Amino acid sequence: MKKQVVVLGAGMVGSAVAGDLAGDTDLSVQVADVSTDALERVQARYGVRTLQADLSTPAGIHRAVEKADVVVGSLSSSMGLATLQTMIETGRPYCDISFMAQDAWALDELAKRRGMTAVVDMGVAPGVSNLLCGHAVTLFDACERLEIYVGGLPIERRWPYQYKAPFAPSDVIEEYTRPARLVEHGALVTREALSEPELLDFPEVGTLEAFNSDGLRSLAYTLKVPFMKEKTLRYPGHIELMRALRHLGLFSAEPIEVGGQMVRPLDVTSALLFPQWMYEEGEPDLTVLRIVLEGKKEGARVRHSWELIDRYDAATGVRSMSRTTGYAASCMARLMLEGKVRQHGVLPPERLSHEPGLVDRFLALYEERGLKMTHQELRLS
Amino acid sequence: MKKQVVVLGAGMVGSAVAGDLAGDTDLSVQVADVSTDALERVQARYGVRTLQADLSTPAGIHRAVEKADVVVGSLSSSMGLATLQTMIETGRPYCDISFMAQDAWALDELAKRRGMTAVVDMGVAPGVSNLLCGHAVTLFDACERLEIYVGGLPIERRWPYQYKAPFAPSDVIEEYTRPARLVEHGALVTREALSEPELLDFPEVGTLEAFNSDGLRSLAYTLKVPFMKEKTLRYPGHIELMRALRHLGLFSAEPIEVGGQMVRPLDVTSALLFPQWMYEEGEPDLTVLRIVLEGKKEGARVRHSWELIDRYDAATGVRSMSRTTGYAASCMARLMLEGKVRQHGVLPPERLSHEPGLVDRFLALYEERGLKMTHQELRLS
Repeated sequence: MKKQVVVLGAGMVGSAVAGDLAGDTDLSVQVADVSTDALERVQARYGVRTLQADLSTPAGIHRAVEKADVVVGSLSSSMGLATLQTMIETGRPYCDISFMAQDAWALDELAKRRGMTAVVDMGVAPGVSNLLCGHAVTLFDACERLEIYVGGLPIERRWPYQYKAPFAPSDVIEEYTRPARLVEHGALVTREALSEPELLDFPEVGTLEAFNSDGLRSLAYTLKVPFMKEKTLRYPGHIELMRALRHLGLFSAEPIEVGGQMVRPLDVTSALLFPQWMYEEGEPDLTVLRIVLEGKKEGARVRHSWELIDRYDAATGVRSMSRTTGYAASCMARLMLEGKVRQHGVLPPERLSHEPGLVDRFLALYEERGLKMTHQELRLS
Repeated sequence: MKKQVVVLGAGMVGSAVAGDLAGDTDLSVQVADVSTDALERVQARYGVRTLQADLSTPAGIHRAVEKADVVVGSLSSSMGLATLQTMIETGRPYCDISFMAQDAWALDELAKRRGMTAVVDMGVAPGVSNLLCGHAVTLFDACERLEIYVGGLPIERRWPYQYKAPFAPSDVIEEYTRPARLVEHGALVTREALSEPELLDFPEVGTLEAFNSDGLRSLAYTLKVPFMKEKTLRYPGHIELMRALRHLGLFSAEPIEVGGQMVRPLDVTSALLFPQWMYEEGEPDLTVLRIVLEGKKEGARVRHSWELIDRYDAATGVRSMSRTTGYAASCMARLMLEGKVRQHGVLPPERLSHEPGLVDRFLALYEERGLKMTHQELRLS
């Protein structure tokens, strides 16, 4: 009998997840969403079963997942925590890429008591990056430094933003305003968003600019590495413009009086900017991920790095950011069906890295989808 | 008996005009304004007489100027046309720096019939630039090219604008949106505002960036030069940022719906930006003016150029933009009292250039105030 997979959410990423899993003849895939339009699109494209359900309610989720062997959550970040809470109630294996603002692992004990497994933050970064970092630190006697660089960008660089938003533009602005948490000398420190821009070269992509963003998430707590940071990548120039807009006050949610009415500048900026940040239908994008770790191994200084550069796939019409994020989740869902994830609890991916054969199997599945994490090891001294 | 001078407006420029004229023992200076605060400041500073009057009404203007031998107008641009109309009724000699949006010279016939003289646009540029251009074209057998570059800038370049507004910030934004009219091949052409940025070097100031602005005004009609343009100067980088803000839609006066209310983005931008563009009390500024004309003279290609670089005067506390603008008007008012302006009508300054001795006398007076127009003549072939 086929294993039952339920995908919560028929958006860009949810569709990619469903499409990938639907290619596996051992699986029966059902996609649940509140939008019949979105469901019709994913059904027409991938032939998956669909269920119209209000996933903002526990009842809707319970109904959607009642026969599932594994559930993949690809709902918006604002629905992430409530969905996880309900999923814990259901007890069914869950893999989530909602990137909720809250710390999902606060529900770890609850999930353990329920004997339930939820892998959270399971996209590309956070996600694949966590899995690899959890693995990579075991390659050192002492890992001293960990850096993650990630960005989703349009191929076409058009003035003035040289940017389109591969996910909710409001979450992008959030990245430009929320202070970034880094680890320095083993302690958590805070830097202004968009700070410490640095230029980095990537093969075939060219020079990108990285800024501090608040993307370490669970890694800041689960790994014992004295220096850790996560930075977001943009084409050079974007950061400068975004800093200027922020300085001008355009990202402020504090209402100001304008012509006798109270207005939030951020709302005006959003109304003007977000339509300009929409990808065109079929517009090619790319995803860049670089992970660098340095430390000591048998007396020598060693650097391990992994790099992924992925582009829009014209054949399938799936955007790169949806591929790298969605296929990370679909590959993890497969590992869960294969019994590779044996722990209970709410688990960020780095907590799975020690499961025997899991990382290798994940990277093999990911690579089968054209997503190759190129590994390099370098002796520095 | 002392000659009576009345200054309409006790703002930044009006105060500079009054202060300069008050230094002349032959003159009795009165400043009129609706604001008693502004009047108290200019009286305390320069000991001039003051009159509180509502200059937005013809009656207010009539009352203010009834004993004047010459009147200097330094009211806001929005009041410029109405004030000129009333001044024509009064018949009294008038010198104006309001830079009204309308073509003041449309009232030329009316002023002529009234036997009245109004010199308009009599600041630094428009103003001194017009006077010099009207003079300069007579130095050629055929003048082929005329370029005016002008900017008022803070000495301190602070990220991200590197700019403060020396006059109403709304008029600055107007400069960034209104199409610029140029003359090419003898015909009026239109370019987008902020277009065709070019880098120019100025002694002791460094490299500035010039963009097309709509500042030829009367020169486009009064001079027969096949190529004419006026460009505004900023520190490099400012133009790029302003173009990005304009592209984003922030300079648009079209209301958009934001959170259920209609909002003009320009109003929000103004509310956020204008306070950041205010000069601090005593903050030093500079004014840069360069005029370049090329043409033929006795078979040779010749270039004439004039350049003014002026800085904030800490001794008097008068801002450079107020000095260069206000003293242009006060010097012209003196020439009018001296009988150097013999024509009637509404006259842009280039129409005075042929009056015997007027340009030399003006430049001498201007230089006495530290405002030296450095002239250079170059044979190109």
